[in-house]
Parts: sequence; structure tokens; C-alpha cells
Amino acid sequence: MAEITTEKIKELRAKTGAGIVDCKKALQEADGDIEKALEILRKKGAAKAAKKADRATAEGIVVSYIHAGGKVGALVEINCETDFVARTDDFKALGHEIAMQVAAMNPKYVSREEVPAEIIEKEKEILKEQALAEGKPEHIVEKIVEGRLNKFYSENCLLEQPWIKDDSKTIGDLVKEYITKLGENIKVKRFCRFGVGE
Amino acid sequence: MAEITTEKIKELRAKTGAGIVDCKKALQEADGDIEKALEILRKKGAAKAAKKADRATAEGIVVSYIHAGGKVGALVEINCETDFVARTDDFKALGHEIAMQVAAMNPKYVSREEVPAEIIEKEKEILKEQALAEGKPEHIVEKIVEGRLNKFYSENCLLEQPWIKDDSKTIGDLVKEYITKLGENIKVKRFCRFGVGE
Repeated sequence: MAEITTEKIKELRAKTGAGIVDCKKALQEADGDIEKALEILRKKGAAKAAKKADRATAEGIVVSYIHAGGKVGALVEINCETDFVARTDDFKALGHEIAMQVAAMNPKYVSREEVPAEIIEKEKEILKEQALAEGKPEHIVEKIVEGRLNKFYSENCLLEQPWIKDDSKTIGDLVKEYITKLGENIKVKRFCRFGVGE
Repeated sequence: MAEITTEKIKELRAKTGAGIVDCKKALQEADGDIEKALEILRKKGAAKAAKKADRATAEGIVVSYIHAGGKVGALVEINCETDFVARTDDFKALGHEIAMQVAAMNPKYVSREEVPAEIIEKEKEILKEQALAEGKPEHIVEKIVEGRLNKFYSENCLLEQPWIKDDSKTIGDLVKEYITKLGENIKVKRFCRFGVGE
């Protein structure tokens, strides 16, 4: 059995934000392999996060981020279950990351569920015409449209956008990590973004 | 002729934000009477501000204000004519005051021009019914409704709200003062406000 060094635990912890005990267990289970341990923690985290996703979120904070020079600003409300968690530095840090993301990447909606049906229909139409104009055969056009629609979601929906600081995860993944870390359901309720001259 | 002391000039300056020369002139014209000098400066300022109110405002800044504990936040975009003015501390200070006002007083619109016609009609109807229910005679009900509608505007329209730090002026008055002070047209373009649990 491979040795589970403190360095490995630290590395895993930095990557996931999971607790020391969980990191150690995952590394033991993965026989010291960081990548496997990551996978194990992710699955556990996702399972935990899914369990918490139904719990009511009535507390929270409002966070702002102003881009250098004041030309762009974002305001975000994120919710959690208790005021205790709302006051933690971790929760504030998550709010800060999300406000930065909104300022930088200008999403239009929080999640794909928020996109109005008529916008999706219009987008599908445009994508279909594009695919046909590119000479794609009719029978695969539907699949192409679905694929490109996912791209539309990942550009316009905050939770599906790749995180600007680490594009291997989405903002939704980041939120799930914090759900695991803080042990409470967390929801991005709403955001707003102004850019001078936009 | 009354002596124009430095103290009086300072006092007038603190109250109006006008330049030293303008304050001295106004005090001379008012024979040392602060109240009269205030009136003179206000008229001059208003005249200058009115002249500037048509000029294009394409520059500006986005300012945020988060209320103690992060339970309420406001984001405001204010515009001016040049980036030079947008970068001044005075302009930032105005933005800060307006963001604080929005956080504290929760306005719904920037100006009365933004209130949708159907909202005004509905409000008028309610006010009319209230006045009649109070037993006011029919022939003065219209006047009462108009008066109370102004109250609706001063509660819901940012520019008509009394400033939380000095309710002798409205936010619109405050903006006009800064137009005079900074020599450029200034517009509050938009704002947004989130309160946790609202």
C-alpha cells in the first residue's frame, strides 16, 4: 500500500477544499493516486451536494465587484441555509468569485432553466439554418443544433460558464464544491451587471 | 457694506460646493447674508445646470454600496461627459451617495418619466378611491390625487427622493449641485438593488 504523505493530502485539499479526513480517506482508497482520489472526492461531493440541493436557502449575502477604473460592476445575491454560514469568509469568498465572473463574462441568466422558451426556439432556428448553410446533411442537423445549443448555455448561463480562474470547472461545479465544504445548500439567486456605455 | 469673512465663505462653500470666488461674489451681492447668498448661488447653479442638461453623457462609472453585514447591496451607473470628470474623487463621491441612497431607500425608478403609464393610472385610481372613502368632496378629489401622486413619485423615484443625509434637498438637487461643481452634465443612468430575503 502506498504511503499517504502530508504533501499529498495538502495538494488534494487545495484542489478540492474537502476536509483533511476526507482527503486522507480518498487517498487511501485510491492507493495514493491523486487523480483517482480527486475522482472519488468529486463523486462523494456531488452525492452530498445533490442531497442538499432541495434544502431551503433563506439566508445569504449580497456581494459586489467593481472592475478596475469603475467601468464595469456586478452585484450578486447568493443564498445559503443559515446566517452562520452566510457570515463565514468562505461564503464571502464564493460570492466574490461569482461577482468577478459576472463582471468579466457577462452572463445573461443564472441557469438554463431561466432562459425563456422563445429565446431557445429562436436560437435553435438560427443554429439550424447555420448548419444547413454549412452543407451539413439533414439527418445530423438536429444533433449539431443540440451540441451548439449547449455552447449557447455555457456562454450565457452563469452556472454553466467555465470559471475564469480555472476553466476545468464550471461556476456550477464551484458552487457544488462550496456546498460540500460548508455543508449547506447554496443558491445563486440573482445578479446584475452594468458596463459604462453598454 | 458687511465684511465678507473667510469663515462665511467657508460655511457657504461647505453648504453648496461652489467655488471660493463664486461664494465670495454671492456673499457680496447678499451683503454678507448667508441665506440670501445661498439663494443667489442656487439660482445661478440651477441656471448653469439647466444649460448643461442636454449635453451628451457617454462616460461615467459604476459604483456599488454594500450595507453592513452584506444583507443589502446596490449598484449604480452614473454618466458624465468626459472620462476626466469620471475619474475625479468628486464624481466618485456622488456615485457613492447615490448608491447609499438606493440601498437605504429602495427606489423603483430613476425618474418619474420612467414610471409606466399603467402604474400611474392604477395609483391614481387607488388614491381617488381613498379620497372618496375619506369623505372628501368630489370637486377637490382631483387636486388631492395630484398631491398624493407627488408623494408617490417622491417615494419611488430616486431623483425625487429626499436625500437621506440632508432631506432639505432631493437626489435630483444633489445631482444638479454636482453638475455646477464639475461643469459637466451628469445623469443617473440605472441602478439595481438586492436585499436578502426580499
